[in-house]
Amino acid sequence: MELKNDLLLRVARGEAVERPPVWLMRQAGRILPQYRAVREKLSGFKELVETPELAAEVTIQPVDELDVDAAIIFSDILVIPEAMGLDYEMVEKRGPLFPRTIRSESDIEKLVDGETAASRLGYVYDALELARKNLGGRVPLIGFSGAPWTLLAYMVEGSGSKTFSKAKRLLYTEPALAHRLLEKITQTIIAYLREKARYGADLIQLFDSWGGILSPALYREFSTPYLQQICSSIPEVPVTVFAKGAWFALEDIARMDCQVIGLDWNISAEEGRSRVGGQKVLQGNLDPCFLYAGPSQIRRAVREMLEAFGGRHIANLGHGVYPDTPLEGVKAFVQAVKDYRYK
Amino acid sequence: MELKNDLLLRVARGEAVERPPVWLMRQAGRILPQYRAVREKLSGFKELVETPELAAEVTIQPVDELDVDAAIIFSDILVIPEAMGLDYEMVEKRGPLFPRTIRSESDIEKLVDGETAASRLGYVYDALELARKNLGGRVPLIGFSGAPWTLLAYMVEGSGSKTFSKAKRLLYTEPALAHRLLEKITQTIIAYLREKARYGADLIQLFDSWGGILSPALYREFSTPYLQQICSSIPEVPVTVFAKGAWFALEDIARMDCQVIGLDWNISAEEGRSRVGGQKVLQGNLDPCFLYAGPSQIRRAVREMLEAFGGRHIANLGHGVYPDTPLEGVKAFVQAVKDYRYK
Repeated sequence: MELKNDLLLRVARGEAVERPPVWLMRQAGRILPQYRAVREKLSGFKELVETPELAAEVTIQPVDELDVDAAIIFSDILVIPEAMGLDYEMVEKRGPLFPRTIRSESDIEKLVDGETAASRLGYVYDALELARKNLGGRVPLIGFSGAPWTLLAYMVEGSGSKTFSKAKRLLYTEPALAHRLLEKITQTIIAYLREKARYGADLIQLFDSWGGILSPALYREFSTPYLQQICSSIPEVPVTVFAKGAWFALEDIARMDCQVIGLDWNISAEEGRSRVGGQKVLQGNLDPCFLYAGPSQIRRAVREMLEAFGGRHIANLGHGVYPDTPLEGVKAFVQAVKDYRYK
Repeated sequence: MELKNDLLLRVARGEAVERPPVWLMRQAGRILPQYRAVREKLSGFKELVETPELAAEVTIQPVDELDVDAAIIFSDILVIPEAMGLDYEMVEKRGPLFPRTIRSESDIEKLVDGETAASRLGYVYDALELARKNLGGRVPLIGFSGAPWTLLAYMVEGSGSKTFSKAKRLLYTEPALAHRLLEKITQTIIAYLREKARYGADLIQLFDSWGGILSPALYREFSTPYLQQICSSIPEVPVTVFAKGAWFALEDIARMDCQVIGLDWNISAEEGRSRVGGQKVLQGNLDPCFLYAGPSQIRRAVREMLEAFGGRHIANLGHGVYPDTPLEGVKAFVQAVKDYRYK
């Protein structure tokens, strides 16, 4: 299907454009009244993730309501551990919880991986296919996955954590086991993302949400090689790598076979560009809390950001939009980008 | 009183030494069986903080048990908000909780500040005086305070938080109020730290524990000037600034009237030194999770760290030691530093 608005893809391919495309991480979510209306009829978050008609519906809501330049499939990074055999619950106001975690070599050996695991995620591919059909080519559709280290962190820790010290303990004390687990996760992600591309994802984003709790040396050993392996294995579509907090790894990420690199709000556009070099497109990086400010402040901040990046840029926040962000702040953000023109 | 071991102070003053001094953030705490024995007889954490005899006792325990080169007074950064009029509770396994938070200008105006607030913290000065006496000059005694931004974050948010979005919302929407609050906190910290120096603190450390959730621009506006003001106001003793996660502010911190700059484990020694320049001493920065590894791995990691810093360095972790760290790991860390000699 021909895309009516392919700005995101043109920028990801390195073409010059008149303004940056704009979308928001977590744009399909609680900031939208339409989303909350769908969500409150359901038993829980996972029902929404696992019901293709509903996942497709909330995927398209921000395109209707916010007029963003991309949709991102509504899903969860933890569908991969689940497909590998590690069920989880999403506990209201607490986050994910895995009743069983990975503690030993036999736990790892029991995990299903690769295409077998990916084939259990038919509901994601169905949602993608349906969202793509219902979008009717209005904007590109982004697919995503958690990065191997971030998924390992949940599978070993069993929940969110300030320190993820159980997961890091595994890296320090049982590095061979950690690599074995990362390898199985990586093979599953690759099979999953190739299916996503086949079912209509126009671009893939990898979220290394817990990259920032690793030291540079640990990141280089336990995250970089697996991210690189994934980037090299999905040549069908452009890939974005977003490693939150892992500013120290940007030079290594810049050498991967990816097209776009996400930045959080801790790093200035200037420093991001200088670490990454000119070959990649950058995505980000307004502080999500800025959207609590008034519209004129937001417009000014957006202009400053766009001028600082100067081009080869996809406008976004530096993290997912916070659920309590006022809708008017989100709209001011999107509109300010759409009103901008490169000189 | 003449110090028998003044290695920490000689390094902080810029003198050449034969090996780096070593201590650990949170060394007086749950890692020590002696601490747990004291703690379990009490009603709660705050009773320990507020009882000078006990606070002094647990301050000295790591000097006895771990043979570290410094003691740090056992206390809490939140004694300052409390002295200003904002009581808090320490909820077991959850962390601090403020039943009332700062929400308006009148909340700020009601706060006590400066010497009046600092004069309410007699129990801290008593603990310091007693710890110093009982140490008998064995090692220097470190005093500390939270940094203004970090204390504001708790006073507005009311508890720990992943995002501190309420506190950051104040910075974006009511910057004048935020500055007014920061000014009152800063005046209190200065009065408090001057008392601490008078009662026997040999060095002061400022903890900007939530520095890393600010953007570079916010940090420069709402943290840097207040840290600088404090550094310039306690000429009696050397000052360490430790802004966790705020790697982007290191150049600005290097311009403050401080002697030592703490680094977390996200930044390599090389990059830390290059950002800070040669004028300051660096402190840190082994990943606390490394102490879960075996003694020989720890020894190797310590040697690598000391060689990477190369001098003008105080050996420490990149964050407080985690409560479940095995004592043997902590001891291997300390011993490895003490066995090292600069070439």
